[in-house]
Amino acid sequence: MALWSGRFEQGVSEFTQEFGASLEDDKSMYAQDIAGSIAHAKMLARQGVIPQEDAEKIEAGLLKIKGQIDAGTFEWDVNDEDIHMAVEGALIRDIGAPGARLHTGRSRNDQVATDIRLLAKDMLRELAKENCKLRKTLLLAAEKNFDVVMPGYTHMQHAQPVLFSHHLLAYFWMFTRDLKRIAFAFEDADANPLGSAALAGTTYPLDRFYTTELLGFDHPIPNSMDAVSDRDYLLDLLFACSVSMMHLSRLCEEIITWSTTEFGFVTLSDEYSTGSSIMPQKKNPDFAELTRGKSGRVVGNLVALLVTMKGLPLAYNKDLQECKQGAIDSAKTLRDCMTCMEGMIDTWTVHTDRMLDEAKAGFTAATDVADYLAKKGMPFRRAHEVVGELVLYCEKHGKGLEDLTLAEFQTASDLFGEDVAQDLDPAGIARARNTYGGTGHDAVRVQLGEAKARLQSDEAMVEGM
Amino acid sequence: MALWSGRFEQGVSEFTQEFGASLEDDKSMYAQDIAGSIAHAKMLARQGVIPQEDAEKIEAGLLKIKGQIDAGTFEWDVNDEDIHMAVEGALIRDIGAPGARLHTGRSRNDQVATDIRLLAKDMLRELAKENCKLRKTLLLAAEKNFDVVMPGYTHMQHAQPVLFSHHLLAYFWMFTRDLKRIAFAFEDADANPLGSAALAGTTYPLDRFYTTELLGFDHPIPNSMDAVSDRDYLLDLLFACSVSMMHLSRLCEEIITWSTTEFGFVTLSDEYSTGSSIMPQKKNPDFAELTRGKSGRVVGNLVALLVTMKGLPLAYNKDLQECKQGAIDSAKTLRDCMTCMEGMIDTWTVHTDRMLDEAKAGFTAATDVADYLAKKGMPFRRAHEVVGELVLYCEKHGKGLEDLTLAEFQTASDLFGEDVAQDLDPAGIARARNTYGGTGHDAVRVQLGEAKARLQSDEAMVEGM
Amino acid sequence: MALWSGRFEQGVSEFTQEFGASLEDDKSMYAQDIAGSIAHAKMLARQGVIPQEDAEKIEAGLLKIKGQIDAGTFEWDVNDEDIHMAVEGALIRDIGAPGARLHTGRSRNDQVATDIRLLAKDMLRELAKENCKLRKTLLLAAEKNFDVVMPGYTHMQHAQPVLFSHHLLAYFWMFTRDLKRIAFAFEDADANPLGSAALAGTTYPLDRFYTTELLGFDHPIPNSMDAVSDRDYLLDLLFACSVSMMHLSRLCEEIITWSTTEFGFVTLSDEYSTGSSIMPQKKNPDFAELTRGKSGRVVGNLVALLVTMKGLPLAYNKDLQECKQGAIDSAKTLRDCMTCMEGMIDTWTVHTDRMLDEAKAGFTAATDVADYLAKKGMPFRRAHEVVGELVLYCEKHGKGLEDLTLAEFQTASDLFGEDVAQDLDPAGIARARNTYGGTGHDAVRVQLGEAKARLQSDEAMVEGM
Amino acid sequence: MALWSGRFEQGVSEFTQEFGASLEDDKSMYAQDIAGSIAHAKMLARQGVIPQEDAEKIEAGLLKIKGQIDAGTFEWDVNDEDIHMAVEGALIRDIGAPGARLHTGRSRNDQVATDIRLLAKDMLRELAKENCKLRKTLLLAAEKNFDVVMPGYTHMQHAQPVLFSHHLLAYFWMFTRDLKRIAFAFEDADANPLGSAALAGTTYPLDRFYTTELLGFDHPIPNSMDAVSDRDYLLDLLFACSVSMMHLSRLCEEIITWSTTEFGFVTLSDEYSTGSSIMPQKKNPDFAELTRGKSGRVVGNLVALLVTMKGLPLAYNKDLQECKQGAIDSAKTLRDCMTCMEGMIDTWTVHTDRMLDEAKAGFTAATDVADYLAKKGMPFRRAHEVVGELVLYCEKHGKGLEDLTLAEFQTASDLFGEDVAQDLDPAGIARARNTYGGTGHDAVRVQLGEAKARLQSDEAMVEGM
Repeated sequence: MALWSGRFEQGVSEFTQEFGASLEDDKSMYAQDIAGSIAHAKMLARQGVIPQEDAEKIEAGLLKIKGQIDAGTFEWDVNDEDIHMAVEGALIRDIGAPGARLHTGRSRNDQVATDIRLLAKDMLRELAKENCKLRKTLLLAAEKNFDVVMPGYTHMQHAQPVLFSHHLLAYFWMFTRDLKRIAFAFEDADANPLGSAALAGTTYPLDRFYTTELLGFDHPIPNSMDAVSDRDYLLDLLFACSVSMMHLSRLCEEIITWSTTEFGFVTLSDEYSTGSSIMPQKKNPDFAELTRGKSGRVVGNLVALLVTMKGLPLAYNKDLQECKQGAIDSAKTLRDCMTCMEGMIDTWTVHTDRMLDEAKAGFTAATDVADYLAKKGMPFRRAHEVVGELVLYCEKHGKGLEDLTLAEFQTASDLFGEDVAQDLDPAGIARARNTYGGTGHDAVRVQLGEAKARLQSDEAMVEGM
Repeated sequence: MALWSGRFEQGVSEFTQEFGASLEDDKSMYAQDIAGSIAHAKMLARQGVIPQEDAEKIEAGLLKIKGQIDAGTFEWDVNDEDIHMAVEGALIRDIGAPGARLHTGRSRNDQVATDIRLLAKDMLRELAKENCKLRKTLLLAAEKNFDVVMPGYTHMQHAQPVLFSHHLLAYFWMFTRDLKRIAFAFEDADANPLGSAALAGTTYPLDRFYTTELLGFDHPIPNSMDAVSDRDYLLDLLFACSVSMMHLSRLCEEIITWSTTEFGFVTLSDEYSTGSSIMPQKKNPDFAELTRGKSGRVVGNLVALLVTMKGLPLAYNKDLQECKQGAIDSAKTLRDCMTCMEGMIDTWTVHTDRMLDEAKAGFTAATDVADYLAKKGMPFRRAHEVVGELVLYCEKHGKGLEDLTLAEFQTASDLFGEDVAQDLDPAGIARARNTYGGTGHDAVRVQLGEAKARLQSDEAMVEGM
Repeated sequence: MALWSGRFEQGVSEFTQEFGASLEDDKSMYAQDIAGSIAHAKMLARQGVIPQEDAEKIEAGLLKIKGQIDAGTFEWDVNDEDIHMAVEGALIRDIGAPGARLHTGRSRNDQVATDIRLLAKDMLRELAKENCKLRKTLLLAAEKNFDVVMPGYTHMQHAQPVLFSHHLLAYFWMFTRDLKRIAFAFEDADANPLGSAALAGTTYPLDRFYTTELLGFDHPIPNSMDAVSDRDYLLDLLFACSVSMMHLSRLCEEIITWSTTEFGFVTLSDEYSTGSSIMPQKKNPDFAELTRGKSGRVVGNLVALLVTMKGLPLAYNKDLQECKQGAIDSAKTLRDCMTCMEGMIDTWTVHTDRMLDEAKAGFTAATDVADYLAKKGMPFRRAHEVVGELVLYCEKHGKGLEDLTLAEFQTASDLFGEDVAQDLDPAGIARARNTYGGTGHDAVRVQLGEAKARLQSDEAMVEGM
Repeated sequence: MALWSGRFEQGVSEFTQEFGASLEDDKSMYAQDIAGSIAHAKMLARQGVIPQEDAEKIEAGLLKIKGQIDAGTFEWDVNDEDIHMAVEGALIRDIGAPGARLHTGRSRNDQVATDIRLLAKDMLRELAKENCKLRKTLLLAAEKNFDVVMPGYTHMQHAQPVLFSHHLLAYFWMFTRDLKRIAFAFEDADANPLGSAALAGTTYPLDRFYTTELLGFDHPIPNSMDAVSDRDYLLDLLFACSVSMMHLSRLCEEIITWSTTEFGFVTLSDEYSTGSSIMPQKKNPDFAELTRGKSGRVVGNLVALLVTMKGLPLAYNKDLQECKQGAIDSAKTLRDCMTCMEGMIDTWTVHTDRMLDEAKAGFTAATDVADYLAKKGMPFRRAHEVVGELVLYCEKHGKGLEDLTLAEFQTASDLFGEDVAQDLDPAGIARARNTYGGTGHDAVRVQLGEAKARLQSDEAMVEGM
């Protein structure tokens, strides 16, 4: 029988019973639900609302149930609408009257809000840890490939040579920002709704500061109506996941490109590749593609909750039941994709010769050749034009700039001397860009130091979450 | 051992095995996978690629497996990457060598494309049927409440009285359009990719027109690369679901508003309501809220696939593995929400007196009073102003237009006579609007006739899907 | 003074005047607004609601205003809230009393709905035409490059050789489907709301079938409340644009990849490239990138309207003012991006030698070599393994399959004979795949024929839109 | 002639010239572009890269141009591709050679990144200020209506009486969180990309810390490739706007509902209402609807950029040109909607009697009656049932709980005594809920104090942005 039988002459239909149920989605937060209930019971006893011994029986009963669920021996009843009913029902069956006092001064509205916040905090903590692991992976890869020279691209066209380590560190900083978003979502989730009851608070003398302390929240939420209807922290989580998946999708796009026969910069390990049932030669970067593809579902989950929340009046509305699934899915997706990325990077083979070869191709030295002329006194705009014409000449004759004779150079401008050669070496070009944040070896060394320090302080921060 | 062992020196890691698996998502299309394989085998035999008896063994073996899955006795192996592997593996274990010939001239790329198209068609057929049921429900409700007068709203302000049946029929036509979207998606899905192999077709003499016939597709897809990488029909399905959920969300919003104490137009049945564990008086329109809330996930699923598809090069990419889940989820969600809506409408109680009372409030007769003056010769713009001032007067004195004495009317304009009274009755006002598509009784009768005829022809069309 | 002064004691604030105005967004539909008004006036006269001579003055007056707007000489008044007010106000100033009769039996609610539908039809017609032009461009490019062999990719890895024409035709069919979506949106927009008045129809004896005929709509909308609040056709337009932009983004992604130094398959013309202000060698596929990037805004516009429509009660709500801008933006964006794509393709240079070279690399013959063994009697699964091992051997020795000696082949299996050589030629491999829809020369010839026929019938269909 | 003429034999086509131009979108950041250029010039001079006097001429020239644009007298050239070209071109025309030295060691890639970050900071600062104003408005409204009692709703059904001030403060806290999101975006934007050049840094001895100081950034970005391709801060801005618009849409939904004839809780002022051209009585909450509707475009803008960024390889790609428009549109939209909300609230009329009347209706006292029984010893679950049956009895007899005689109460349970009356008064019920964050008068007083303190500290924080 439903919990609200008095006012009703008929039960819900079988269809609506199932349509309205959230038990399957809720199960993942049983630990949070039980933790919340234990804190609530302790507080009730401390405030004299229920006897101390009842609180003790409740705690023992709940821990027993948790043990059963942990062990997979708990018997779920499909008639239970949600996790709260499932656990409370089992408790009452187990310990009787004291169990029935647990829900005093509480409503499912503040209970579910508490559970989801605890769950969100747990998921965000896990994401923060994995974020640090991924960044450590990138840092190690950058160190290992410190002086590997590759073509730097803009518009996917060869632009100027850069260090592969510099390229990898660009991602390090993207993921560094992602941790800030994760931490922001964590901070937003870190407030206690328990004690807000249905929407208005209660007449029982609840101590919300005590449950805040017991549950490890930062502070109680100062408005009960906001407390039961706010899901902003899930939007924050979904957004943090979306941006981080976007960053991963960018890196995956590059890995897929680098793995082509045409680029040949990187070979993924067998462990992180798959083959084809038909084509014996295939070795596919499946997991990079899958990660890139999964960026879609994570953006979709964000949109879903924004749509759901749009135009909802205060306070609790059943629409909110739709808030959890996407958040759980996005957090799991991001975590797995980070783990996968770590594995891909840890085990790939980098073809430094191919990278260097391509760093020479595509006239990546052109800027430096123009600068060469500019430094000899030619206005830069004119130098740009002269070198542009040289490039056109090379293209028509199938040559690189490094293949030109001095005579050919001098046809374009008699400012050219033998010393132009040293501006044609990609490693030299990269080495020379030592402005702060640049790709020069010294600059990247500084950057590596900053990255390490930042990771260290972030790890400490995450430890404290 | 994986299907591509030759070229690989190491297997995929346990993590990637699980991360890359789609078996759980795939299971729902086992029937389609088996149907596709049977058709392929028959065609191979007919074309002389495999012996006729092998095809017969394959068919028998596959039907046996289908029986087991239907009955829940099939043993799933977590090591199977997807449904195709699970079924083919079981077949080979069962019937040996002939089973190993099934995959001749086929790749998982065209196989999965075939399965998803068959599944999409099945889901769309089901949605089309439910759409007709929902429209029938609306039609019956409109007939039952044919001459109930309610306030018509614009900007949620009382505008002019309308028939409740007219209001309900507005939704009938929205859902009529949705069926067209569903049918469009069906038509888009109704093309056969089988025989496209990995991406390029094969050297085996496959007869794609024969499998097209066997599987009930409209035609074979004319380009093999398009065939394995196209998922447009899923976007069509997701879009059709999104628009239809948007329409449902609008109706739900109205039902929720109508169920408030303040409106009191409708009471949902106990079967389609829920109560509160704390507040004994509560009777909540939970399922209307849930449906409105679920519009979010369906829009999210559409966005997810658009993001996933963006910028994918030809032909098959693993990103496409992410295409199914959202489609299955959206189709199921829309179907359930339509079923739920039918139940809510079938069992609600309509408070016609409350509706009529409110149809009188809010000065809904004002337009007709202005028209009254206009017909007596006053320019409409001036009449509008006069009546506006009368409304202001009424508001300040807490009266309705129908409460004004003739003297009060005449203070505003001496064109007013006793006969203004007949322009103040909401039923009369509604009755008079008989332009085609208007809310007048005659016009709505015509509309009901058109709606019935349309439903009938649509039902016939759906029957043929 | 506002049009509703009677009931109001105070005007709107200056801020809200501007905040609520839509004139800037509306201006683009002045021609539609005027066409709708002329039809309405003609109908009013024919039905005897206004004198024939007034209708004539109205028509003349409106055409004069249209001439002024066409010529850029019309004086816009910032105090006009929207295009309807601007035009009607000017008309009344111009021709006096007859102009004031234009709005009889009409509301801005049905007026704006009519205007937007006319505009949508115009935009969709233009998109349909451009769609045909783009497909013609692809068809010509396919014919021109009919027998160019390139590597076919799955997972961006070389899979099997395909014809470049086959690859291009895959896009032809994608855009063919897009035309169906455009036509669907057109059909959905092609219904007349005029005569629905504010929401309920009117008491004037309007002939909605006559305005339907005058304005070229297919039929009048059968429900006045639906008529003023429906924007589904804009969602259809936005969706059609989103999918087509997604297709363009895929082709752009390929063009960008093909333009890299590493691939070198295609060089865009100078007209469709840009350079760098700093790097003299740069030639960037800017417009392909821009098109790919613009797919974002078009998806965003679709989401925007879905969010706006969610949960709106009947009938007209001001939220609907937000429906136009995105549709106009998306239609313009798609049209320009199609035009741009035509230019890129028309003027590119295709490097057929590079394509052929790569078609040989990456072991694209492996499937055919396995088939060779299978045809000699080795079970396919074993053949797959043998060839996989050969590929691994080649990789370790830096060879292609075509570089292997017969002895090397025979180390793997003594079924190999001299004749294996003919299965190693990419052109031969492609030529052999002649299943319907395959990449074989004969099959592609058939496909080209079907494509031409389809384009022709589509052009005829578009002509009749 | 374009800036990259050397390598090109042909100019871009007229179409692509216009298609690729961003000048219209860019114009809004001319002040930021000029500020960035002045800082760059000063730094170049200080580092000895250009003569001090050139830097001075550049600064004077740029300030002159800024004055012209400010005054609307600057002549825009449609051939200028973007704002950077327009300004630099005018500078060179004005001051000659020194102007041509401005672009030394800089690329449009880092220039545009700098401009957008400066613009984003300006927009976010403005949003932060408006956010504080809106919250102040809510705070004042809460104070003014401190002890007004209204029905509290869950599922839009009467739940328990609450203070209107408590309801308004729920929004105060939502917008408080929004300020944190705005501040987060500001912090993310507050890093200097200038000096990153095209993607790799430069060989010129630039001092990026000095330009950081001059431009008021917090720090220089530590990786040049990240610097030119990162747009995360715009995603942060777009997300902050989306969530805040969602909050506004919720409040608007309530205002629209409260303004209905049926609710009658609030009347918006004439200044913040509009009428109808046809219906003289209409007074529509247009601006609340428009705000709710605009939540769509803001979510759409967020999705647009997420789609655009998905899968982009490093470093700069032209797709990024699509990043600005949505951010500018969203920021302007949110700012205007906040301003509008302030006006609506400042000038509305609250109908406290209607609110109180409804607070009595709908059995809002039921929970307290059940608690009454529970406190007299009846188990709560049984008390819930008893009161549920009483409610059913009342509904059938058209009574409220307060209309029941003691005898009627006692039919349900003989625990009822005369003193039940005091649990039936809505004001009393609200008053009693004094748990922290509850709706009791004392609790709300505490909350008001915390809200004021928070606003004050936030205002100080915003002052320092």
